[in-house]
Amino acid sequence: MTDIMQGIDVLVSEVGPRDGLQSIKSIMPTQAKKDWIKALHEAGIREVEVGSFVPPKLLPQLADTAEIVQYARTLPGLQVAALVPNLRGAENAIASGAHKITIPLSVSETHSLKNLRKTHAQVYDEVKGIVALIKSQPADKRPHFEGSLSTAFGCTLEGAVPESTVVKIGEHLLALGCDEVGLADTTGYANPAQVRSMIKAIWAAVGKDKLTGIHIHNTRGLGLANALAALDIGITTFDSSLGGLGGCPFAPGASGNIVTEDLVFMLDSMGLKTGIDLEKLLKVRDIVKAAVPDEMYGFTPEAGVPKGYVQTSKGGNGWGLGETTLAAE
Amino acid sequence: MTDIMQGIDVLVSEVGPRDGLQSIKSIMPTQAKKDWIKALHEAGIREVEVGSFVPPKLLPQLADTAEIVQYARTLPGLQVAALVPNLRGAENAIASGAHKITIPLSVSETHSLKNLRKTHAQVYDEVKGIVALIKSQPADKRPHFEGSLSTAFGCTLEGAVPESTVVKIGEHLLALGCDEVGLADTTGYANPAQVRSMIKAIWAAVGKDKLTGIHIHNTRGLGLANALAALDIGITTFDSSLGGLGGCPFAPGASGNIVTEDLVFMLDSMGLKTGIDLEKLLKVRDIVKAAVPDEMYGFTPEAGVPKGYVQTSKGGNGWGLGETTLAAE
Repeated sequence: MTDIMQGIDVLVSEVGPRDGLQSIKSIMPTQAKKDWIKALHEAGIREVEVGSFVPPKLLPQLADTAEIVQYARTLPGLQVAALVPNLRGAENAIASGAHKITIPLSVSETHSLKNLRKTHAQVYDEVKGIVALIKSQPADKRPHFEGSLSTAFGCTLEGAVPESTVVKIGEHLLALGCDEVGLADTTGYANPAQVRSMIKAIWAAVGKDKLTGIHIHNTRGLGLANALAALDIGITTFDSSLGGLGGCPFAPGASGNIVTEDLVFMLDSMGLKTGIDLEKLLKVRDIVKAAVPDEMYGFTPEAGVPKGYVQTSKGGNGWGLGETTLAAE
Repeated sequence: MTDIMQGIDVLVSEVGPRDGLQSIKSIMPTQAKKDWIKALHEAGIREVEVGSFVPPKLLPQLADTAEIVQYARTLPGLQVAALVPNLRGAENAIASGAHKITIPLSVSETHSLKNLRKTHAQVYDEVKGIVALIKSQPADKRPHFEGSLSTAFGCTLEGAVPESTVVKIGEHLLALGCDEVGLADTTGYANPAQVRSMIKAIWAAVGKDKLTGIHIHNTRGLGLANALAALDIGITTFDSSLGGLGGCPFAPGASGNIVTEDLVFMLDSMGLKTGIDLEKLLKVRDIVKAAVPDEMYGFTPEAGVPKGYVQTSKGGNGWGLGETTLAAE
């Protein structure tokens, strides 16, 4: 989002409170969620996906999403995002005041049936309904609406997913009225060559402004390499999860978002502006650790920042010693 | 090395038997080392750093390096590499028949004193002696001689290491007669922008053929991103360690080479030829696990390859679905 991106090169979108919490059995108390989001905001995080508007029976961990959205809205400058599986979810998200809503569409229809219990045609119907709902709102209540192309880089059920299919579905979502599409490596299958190829193919079809973000998992250890591949060609928004909490419970073995702390260290050390204070960010882990017993990951939290390291966010130039790799194009 | 690189795009140089074993307390039996190296060779690995010619008192784990070099020499097409801290080590390495010897020089002189117990001037003296020794050998006994620029991306003791210093020392090592220099992120401080900048600076000073390889640690999780950064601009040799075994015992908190299995999956899935059979490689872990109790790392071994994945090494085009990112320059 343009407002949020002012003065920063790369937007790190924290998805831990949604993607992280939905994949663990523990239920984080509402107050702990608020403390977590507040601490993220104080560390300089400018977008948080705070929850998902799904039936509480399905994901009791996220039953308080409406309350969390309302709370997060009080934090100045924070872009509050939420997942919505359908029109009903979108109604609740808009009523709560979410700035951004995302509907996931599994490019693999097999996965779509397992995850959302919907065919592609059925998801398109929800999208149409949501677009109509958004248009019926007063201008200041209209959220940014993203269609997220999940399993875009391959599916644990179907295997390879053709690039042309991803492009075609992306085009259709935009034609139906989504403001933007996003790419999600739900299964952790992506590699850097594929990431670049896929982004370029979508850009060629719909324009660069219709795809600015990517959601990467670290299932095979390639997470930050894939992020770099996307960054190099001009992607500016990266989803990640504090401590790598989370994953997709419906794609076996596909756990683990990229770790926010490691992502921020990479970006900051390259001299890129994220607006995030890495030292403060590392301390946010304590809140999550105190609230849920689940394992947290990350290398930078273990190793700490390099000796003499000066954060880009604190007026230094990171460890970059010169050039950055942000695409000029 | 040209012979070794025939038919492959990227050379994965396995350093586990040296860098891995030197940093763990367990001593792997000589037979297990031989089995390990044999299995690596059978999986398609074409270069192994099999040990270090240091006094057994200092590193008893590597006391059998001469025997291991001699054994590894019997495996057809395998480039047998060894580390040598000084002239004496080089004498032993050459007597054993190593194809390639590497002397590490810590760009941080403080680290050099702690690690090799030598000033830069003293290391240069060893280099001179080794060059003279190599020249005195019959042509077919002359190993390839590399000067490895360790702590090139920063030092746990000194902090930032200026790029100009790395270049200057690299130039000097080549002037003294090293065939090549290598870059080593001993401390896991490197970031992708720095990796590219450093490589370009050295190439500008000494030419592209004098720096073809990089040794990366995964201390802050950026290992494969740094490998991709180097790959993108044309580096063709990557050190890695099976299961991420290893690190530098003299740089606190700087443990962990990049994981061979994850590196090979990244390269293979990008459609690049490594000559390595990933499935066979994954099975090699069992040999190491049976021989030493130390922890092994890696994401790909946990997650397995993607459904329907066809290895590049088996005539597929990996998961790349098109372009690779090997530099055209």
